[in-house]
Amino acid sequence: MNAKVFILDVDGVMTTGQFLYSKDGKVMKVFGPDDNDALNMLKPHIEIRFITADKNGLPISHKRIKEDMNFQLDLVGTIERVDWIKDHYDPLEVIYMGDGIFDHFIMKEVGYSIAPANADKTAKENANFVTGNSGGNRAVAEACIHIMQKFFNKNYTDNMP
Amino acid sequence: MNAKVFILDVDGVMTTGQFLYSKDGKVMKVFGPDDNDALNMLKPHIEIRFITADKNGLPISHKRIKEDMNFQLDLVGTIERVDWIKDHYDPLEVIYMGDGIFDHFIMKEVGYSIAPANADKTAKENANFVTGNSGGNRAVAEACIHIMQKFFNKNYTDNMP
Amino acid sequence: MNAKVFILDVDGVMTTGQFLYSKDGKVMKVFGPDDNDALNMLKPHIEIRFITADKNGLPISHKRIKEDMNFQLDLVGTIERVDWIKDHYDPLEVIYMGDGIFDHFIMKEVGYSIAPANADKTAKENANFVTGNSGGNRAVAEACIHIMQKFFNKNYTDNMP
Amino acid sequence: MNAKVFILDVDGVMTTGQFLYSKDGKVMKVFGPDDNDALNMLKPHIEIRFITADKNGLPISHKRIKEDMNFQLDLVGTIERVDWIKDHYDPLEVIYMGDGIFDHFIMKEVGYSIAPANADKTAKENANFVTGNSGGNRAVAEACIHIMQKFFNKNYTDNMP
Repeated sequence: MNAKVFILDVDGVMTTGQFLYSKDGKVMKVFGPDDNDALNMLKPHIEIRFITADKNGLPISHKRIKEDMNFQLDLVGTIERVDWIKDHYDPLEVIYMGDGIFDHFIMKEVGYSIAPANADKTAKENANFVTGNSGGNRAVAEACIHIMQKFFNKNYTDNMP
Repeated sequence: MNAKVFILDVDGVMTTGQFLYSKDGKVMKVFGPDDNDALNMLKPHIEIRFITADKNGLPISHKRIKEDMNFQLDLVGTIERVDWIKDHYDPLEVIYMGDGIFDHFIMKEVGYSIAPANADKTAKENANFVTGNSGGNRAVAEACIHIMQKFFNKNYTDNMP
Repeated sequence: MNAKVFILDVDGVMTTGQFLYSKDGKVMKVFGPDDNDALNMLKPHIEIRFITADKNGLPISHKRIKEDMNFQLDLVGTIERVDWIKDHYDPLEVIYMGDGIFDHFIMKEVGYSIAPANADKTAKENANFVTGNSGGNRAVAEACIHIMQKFFNKNYTDNMP
Repeated sequence: MNAKVFILDVDGVMTTGQFLYSKDGKVMKVFGPDDNDALNMLKPHIEIRFITADKNGLPISHKRIKEDMNFQLDLVGTIERVDWIKDHYDPLEVIYMGDGIFDHFIMKEVGYSIAPANADKTAKENANFVTGNSGGNRAVAEACIHIMQKFFNKNYTDNMP
């Protein structure tokens, strides 16, 4: 496979999937360690971008993904994702990481797919690789290390970055 | 069974069961992924409504369940629930999902009952179905998929919604 | 044993043991389901009170334990607890529930001791009963049900409260 | 080994490794029980200090580690840590505790290394001791008790502090 882009869902992948709600609505999400470091290590090798279907929580995801981590983030509804990917890329050159109950439809269309340990059962059954870690607990860091080794023949333990 | 309504408790079912307390009181609850999507998938097939006994935390639950998800939410104390259900429905047409130490009394009266993985031991012993997922971690999504298959003969993996 | 009082630590017993810190300090703690209901069920049978060593987080604990749940809460440092208990009660009539690295010293002095599943290893080794649930996840509810059965011969599943 | 200093990473060691994000950014971290008590018990025996690479979250870590716990905290980037340690200490007299994907490079240089249960796989493979507890759940308390026993021949269960 000629891996050209790594597209990641945000909630449940970069986060634990949970939302903290106050009486004012969705106010916080829970992100985790090492994911940002590992994505920066992978960045020279492949395009990396994020998509999210969470409109209410977009300001939170935007703050983390776009402002603090400096990656592209687009709002793409769950059921438009297959079309959106086909409009932008050759799906066979796409690595997709997602955790939700509809992500298996996307996983069947792309070149390679990854699910975190906390993903929906059907997502995990349809993913090419399931991380041992959960979203918000190094799932993305583990996915980056896996992609580095499998597609770019690099081992992150060889050299200090 | 002629399943007419799916009644869900909020705390421990839609949430992890935990409350974040500040010096000002109960300020946040933790909701999870996919539950809203799965409830919307199930909605054309059966009436769906929520009950809660948590008066202090009602503004938080109301914001999520009623305002953001658009489902009915009623404040019904734990010990009034059996009577409340009998007043509104034929209990044998009710599917009930709950997690607490008194929910087994309700489970014995309704047509079908579901407990999340994190429920009280006696609730789980009295439920017809125990989800593999916990509240706030796809327990409700899993319950919806289960109800779709068991009572309406629909498989969510067949077609993109 | 003539069980006269049930004394509970707050953090790690009524909560997950964790503190949410902002740049302004300790701002939140995580309480859980069913504990308040079960304590109210036990209250007619035995005196119930709480002690905490957490001075910084006292306003949070006070709001939950004293104001919202209406139980007595005293600030008692870890190393003064054995003396404090002896000053107020016959220690052999005390049931104590705690989770910390110094709680085993107290457990050796009281009539009966309980540790939640998430407690320090030595606390668990010295407790008479270790709950299957963790603090902030029904550990106290389980302890109350256990005390009802063991010391007062009551089974909470017999009758709706 | 002549253990002179215990250097700890903050995120994932003193915390669960997770950040609570609001639309305003990284607003909270999750610290846990017993770590402060155990560090104070160890303090008479060895110098204790903290390093962190988290610039955005520094005000939160500073509030907990420096202001509330009164330990030294320095901002040291992941890739400068080996040099920073060598500049300040004989690395063979250093005990280091970390959890991240680059911490194995540091672990190879110091006299003794500890990883919490939730650490990156390679960190755990390179650590001399892996705690049974996770960061934010007594990992540091367990590490302190281990250091007391292994390097100073003290058992914390012998005497009330």
